[in-house]
This record gives sequence, C-alpha cells and structure tokens, in this order.
Amino acid sequence: MDASIISIGNELLTGQTVNTNAAWIASRLNLAGFAVREIQVVGDEESEILRAISSAAEHASLVLITGGLGPTRDDITKHALCQYFNCSLQEDPAVLKDIRGFFRRRGLEITELNRRQALLPDKATALRNPGGTAPGLWFRQNNTTFIAMPGVPFEMKEMMDHQVIPALEKQGGKQFIIHKTILTQGIGESTLAELIAVWESSLPETIQLAYLPSPGIVRLRLTAQGDREQVLKRLIDQKVEELHLIIPEFIWGYDDDTLEGITGEILKQHGLRLGTAESCTGGYIAHRITSIPGSSEWFNGCIAAYANLAKEKLLNVSPELIRNHGAVSREVAEAMATGAQKALNCHYAIGISGIAGPGGGTKEKPVGTVYISVAGPSSVISRKYQFGDNRERNIIRAGNAALALLKEKTESDLRIAK
Amino acid sequence: MDASIISIGNELLTGQTVNTNAAWIASRLNLAGFAVREIQVVGDEESEILRAISSAAEHASLVLITGGLGPTRDDITKHALCQYFNCSLQEDPAVLKDIRGFFRRRGLEITELNRRQALLPDKATALRNPGGTAPGLWFRQNNTTFIAMPGVPFEMKEMMDHQVIPALEKQGGKQFIIHKTILTQGIGESTLAELIAVWESSLPETIQLAYLPSPGIVRLRLTAQGDREQVLKRLIDQKVEELHLIIPEFIWGYDDDTLEGITGEILKQHGLRLGTAESCTGGYIAHRITSIPGSSEWFNGCIAAYANLAKEKLLNVSPELIRNHGAVSREVAEAMATGAQKALNCHYAIGISGIAGPGGGTKEKPVGTVYISVAGPSSVISRKYQFGDNRERNIIRAGNAALALLKEKTESDLRIAK
Repeated sequence: MDASIISIGNELLTGQTVNTNAAWIASRLNLAGFAVREIQVVGDEESEILRAISSAAEHASLVLITGGLGPTRDDITKHALCQYFNCSLQEDPAVLKDIRGFFRRRGLEITELNRRQALLPDKATALRNPGGTAPGLWFRQNNTTFIAMPGVPFEMKEMMDHQVIPALEKQGGKQFIIHKTILTQGIGESTLAELIAVWESSLPETIQLAYLPSPGIVRLRLTAQGDREQVLKRLIDQKVEELHLIIPEFIWGYDDDTLEGITGEILKQHGLRLGTAESCTGGYIAHRITSIPGSSEWFNGCIAAYANLAKEKLLNVSPELIRNHGAVSREVAEAMATGAQKALNCHYAIGISGIAGPGGGTKEKPVGTVYISVAGPSSVISRKYQFGDNRERNIIRAGNAALALLKEKTESDLRIAK
Repeated sequence: MDASIISIGNELLTGQTVNTNAAWIASRLNLAGFAVREIQVVGDEESEILRAISSAAEHASLVLITGGLGPTRDDITKHALCQYFNCSLQEDPAVLKDIRGFFRRRGLEITELNRRQALLPDKATALRNPGGTAPGLWFRQNNTTFIAMPGVPFEMKEMMDHQVIPALEKQGGKQFIIHKTILTQGIGESTLAELIAVWESSLPETIQLAYLPSPGIVRLRLTAQGDREQVLKRLIDQKVEELHLIIPEFIWGYDDDTLEGITGEILKQHGLRLGTAESCTGGYIAHRITSIPGSSEWFNGCIAAYANLAKEKLLNVSPELIRNHGAVSREVAEAMATGAQKALNCHYAIGISGIAGPGGGTKEKPVGTVYISVAGPSSVISRKYQFGDNRERNIIRAGNAALALLKEKTESDLRIAK
C-alpha cells in the first residue's frame, strides 16, 4: 500500500532543523509493508498544509503528518485539519486527564495553554502521548487513513511504535517489501559499480539496486516487492551470496550493522577489551562506541590526547619520538596505541593521529593525512590514509577507517589463534 | 522570491538516508533572499520526478533539484530532465575534460561509465563539479530557473556556494528575509511560552515567532520579511533586546552559536585551557569540541573513563570514594573533574558521571541520573540532573548541560576576577 508523509514546520523550510522524522517514519512504514511514495515538507500555514494534504490524498491510502501540534501559537496543524475534514474542536476528557497527569508527575500546575492541548477535532480519534502534551489524531475518510502526530521526535516515535504501527498492521492487506543492504568499505562508488556490473545486469526485474555513498562507506541496497515474502527473501539471499563471492574483501556488514557494533560483538564474545587513543578524531570513535547500549562490557575508555603533553604524560609517547617524526606520524600513532593499551589496561587499542584541517597541513603531510594503528595482544598494525580537505568528513572517514582496521586486526588475530 | 526543493532518491523514501541536503540548501537560499515554500522528496522513478517538477514549477520561480545524477543505473534524473524540457543528451567536451582531469589526478583510468557523465541535456548549461564526476545542470524556462545538482552532500555544497548562489545573486530582484534565533537552555517549551506570552503578543505582523525544541535546548526563531533590510533588522534587534530583559538567565546565545563554540571563545580569549573526564557521555563532549577548527588552541584532551579502573588510574579517583558513594555520584564527578585538571594539565575540567541507560538504573538512581562537575582554578561547582530514559537523548542533554555549566562557571570566575 502506498503512503505519503507530510512534515509541517517553518523550521524545516529555513533549514534550521533537519527532517529526521520523515526518514524514521519511512523506515518504520517499510517494515510494516507500506511503500512511501512521496514526502512533502510545508510551512506552518493553513493554505499550504491543506494543499499538501489534498495532494497526498490523491494517490496514497495512508497519509502521515507530523508537526504543528504543539501548544504555542505557531502551531496550526489542528486548525488546518478541522478545515480539511470540515469539523470543529471539542475538549476530550480522557486527553485532559492525561495532560493533568503529565504535569502532576512533574510537580507542575497545568496552565491554560496546556489545557488547550485537550481540544481535538471532533472527527478524530485521539492517540495517547505519554511523553508530552499533544495527542496524536487519527482520521479515516474515503478509504484513506490520515494520522497526525507531534513533531517532537521522541514523542512521535513512541506513538508510532506503540499505537500507529500496531493499528495499521491490524488493518491488514499487506504487501511485502524486502530490503537488504550490503555495507562496503575501502572502495569508491564507481569502481565498485564496475566490479559488480555483470552481477547487477543479472538482477531480476523484481529486485532494484541502489548505491548509497557516505564518507568512507558505500552501501548497496537491494529492494524486492511482492506478495510472497519467502520467494522475495530467497531471491535476495541468493543475489547477496553471489555478490559476496565477487567482492568479499570490501563487504563488512549488512543492513543496520555498524562497524563499532560488529567489532564490539567480536570483542565481547572473546572476552577482549578495547581502548582508544585519539588525536585528530578527538573522542569521536569513543562517542560512537559508547552510544551502543552495553558497550561498557568491552570498552574501557578513551584518551583524547589533543595536546602533545597529554600524549607524553598519559600515553607515555616519548618527546623524542614526537620531535623526530612529528606528532602526525606512523611512529607516534603506534606509540599512542601501545600506550593506550597499557594506560587503559585493554587487549586492543586504537591509536590515531592526523591532520583533520582546515589548518595544520604541510607539503609533506597535507590536510587529510591520517595515521592509524591498532595494537593487539601480540602485534601492532599501522596504515597511512590520505583523506580530503573537509574537517567534518575527515573525522568521520578516519573513524570508519580505524574501526575497519580494528575489525581486520581482531579477525586476523582470532584466525591465527584458532 | 519563492523557491521549491526537490530531493530525489529511493534511499530518502525508505528512510535509509536522512535528507540533510534539503535543510542545508534551504538555509543557503534564505541567506540569498529566497523563501523555500515546499520540499518534495520523490524516488528514482521518471513519472514521479516529472510530477514533482511540474508541481514545483507551478508556484516557484526557482526549483532546486538534487540526487540521481550519479554514474550508476539507478540514477535517472538526467533522463527525466530531458523528458521535461524536451531535449536530448549530448557530450559536453569541457565536462569530459574535467572528468578526465579528475581521474588523472587520482592516478586512475577513465571508464566508460565515467565518460557517460559528460553527456548533458542539450538545453542545459553545465555547472562544474571539482569534487566529483557529475556536473550540475542549469535550465531556464518560462521565467523559472531549474538547477539540478548531485546528491553527494559535499559535491552539492561546493557547487551551491561557488556557482549557484553567486549566479542567483546576480539575477537580482531580491527580497530580504531576516532571521534571528535566540538560544535558551534550562527551561521547557511551554513554561517558556508562558513567561514570554505578553512579549509574543506585542510582535508586529511582519515578525513571526517559532519555538524549536531539541534535547535540553529550546530555540526561539524570529523571522521578518520585506524589501527594506535595515528596517527589518532594527525591528528584530529591538524585540530581541526586550526578550533579553524578560529571560536573561535562560538565553545563552544566538543563531548558529554553539555552547562549545561560545565557551571556547571565552577560554581562548583568556588563555585558559580545558579538559574533560567523561563517563556516561563517553567522549561526546570532546567530539563536539574537537569538531571546531582550531579547538586545539584551548582544548587539551579528554579521558573517557568508562571502566572504574580507568577512573582510578588515570583520574586518580580513590577506590574508597567509588565504593562509598557509587561511580555515579556527586563525589566521584568532582573527583573526576579535579583529577582531569591535573592529568590533562588544564585550568578548567568537566567531570561527568551518570546512567545513560537503558540498563544500570536503580531505585535511588534511575536511568537518566547524571552528576556534572566543573573544576576551575579556585573552586569546583557540581549539579545533579534528572534526564529521561532514552540513551541517545540523555547523552545529548548531559553534553548540553555540562557545556552550559562550564559557561556559567567560567563567566562567574571571570566576573569575580575583574
């Protein structure tokens, strides 16, 4: 079934807010068997909202709307919906009770502004909002379902997962959409495309391929759509297996895998612990790792040694080494890795030193030069990388390269140990 | 003048990629005096692309298109544009030369797939792409300008900043759109709305107000639109000044200010250096700081002490203290801050210990409990926070709270020193 998403909010049209909601909703709808055909973003203006809803209703059987349900005056979605469905606002006692409870739990008094949140279009069914004060709204007209939710991401997500998706799944009549994403690292988009051109031509019409490049990583997404789930799955599995025979060295994971998650699993399984010594990435790798729930089971910590003195004192990198080779050098990256291994008392440690930019480059070591070392229980592996001139991208690419090198090193150590 | 953005790519409709491009383009267009009225996201399908372009052309004088210009088969934007403008593909010698140069500089051979990138719709003017192989395309029809750019963010940004925006500004006929965003911390959206309700009512019709909440921070955006730039600016300045009298304690910055950027400026100006000792934020604060170019001038480094042993060994937190008060406690956060001050040899240090979740909570210290300390040259300040139950949000909120506390502490110290 076809779905359409409408995101409402001036902040999305001025670029002050990135529309993460639409992407999240789309991925959830996909899992529930809805294909999103279109996303529209419009401002907090009644005529624009009405135009977007009418246009969506023309070709979608499900219209999901977020934003503009807040308590402040710039939020006008509820009024636009009354207009569209030709109904009026009425206080909903159950919702008012929810709102009172919300404030009571926080030891706060309910205000007039909050109370108005309980006014709902009388043709709508309310969706509870345990995380906030704006209820969701569910309408049904001419075989199309319209659902309006708050724009605050965590309120919307709670509402989608616990109310909207279960209700949609009950409606039934589901088509299957199967996605499989193959994650590659260490190869550019067009080189990859040529390596797998013959395989790509062999894909049946029911399977679509997309190339999704990002700093240091190219994702290959296969999509199959139809009404026989098992057939689609087998078809995709077979094609993924074939691909694995063509480019085994570049594939590191699938779907929502992350380099940090995969490597963490390997370490955890073998009772190994990790630490990082980060210079140019300044804590970015540790942040990615510690964003994973439970990472404390295998991650000991990070020393982001930005100043040379910190490298010397905390990581025991000798001042002579820095003087002779420069802070950005293979030798210093190795000393950082082995220093972190000791200081953080871990089996594996990443050492990383480079020039993220925009300043600090020289002719021999231009911006984007990065040395990465991984120290393991019995040996150290090091590699030099040459990234681009954008600081943000360089930090991300260095992070991906370091985690890929760590994965390579642990896997190779474990193979030898077998 | 009104603009419309069309983002093309199946990955945007499946939610695998977040549409950061549209937000970035919108903010750049705003600065150049274009108001974005609508963003449309469609898949890599000719009929959908054509429908989106037709719809955009109905009410916008500028249509910006990104995505689907890559070398792989799923990229079909160029063909859809040929269809819309009724023209055909032709090899552009200048573009071909660019592409050859691109590969020569990388020591690579040009392939047939790359060569096809030089085929352009014959009604289009090419925009150079120094960062990639897909040129941009510029069309003009019925007083509307259509510009297609690659979807790879850094290629698109380079093209926008160096070619598209300068060319649009030359076209002239500009309206002015003035934004001013006031950044607040430490107060929720609806409480804030009531505090400033009278002021909000006093805003003239030419000024619009929007509330933009995010974890730990509410941004208030004022927008004025008209043809007399100075009048608009004075109007906004006056309203901001009034607001500052009402909620001085909650305002910490304006527009693109970041807590880390503002505090960094203060530290740099006074020759003060910073370090962080992070437990539950695991390097997140250091990552935010080191994402700022030149932060090495005032940032010494971070010790993300995830394991207790790391807290003891690197930060000199005594095992008794951890035993008596627990790793998540005011006492340990303070010891981490003063420990980091010494270990990282800096004037100021943040110590932060908490339970990010989802595991690790107890009845006394539920998930979301965070202690933050800032150690300065002569004293330490500490505070307890109770955030929610979402790990990702808790890390962000803890980071914002820590940087706000650091700002408060340095400003108070500097006032006393005066």
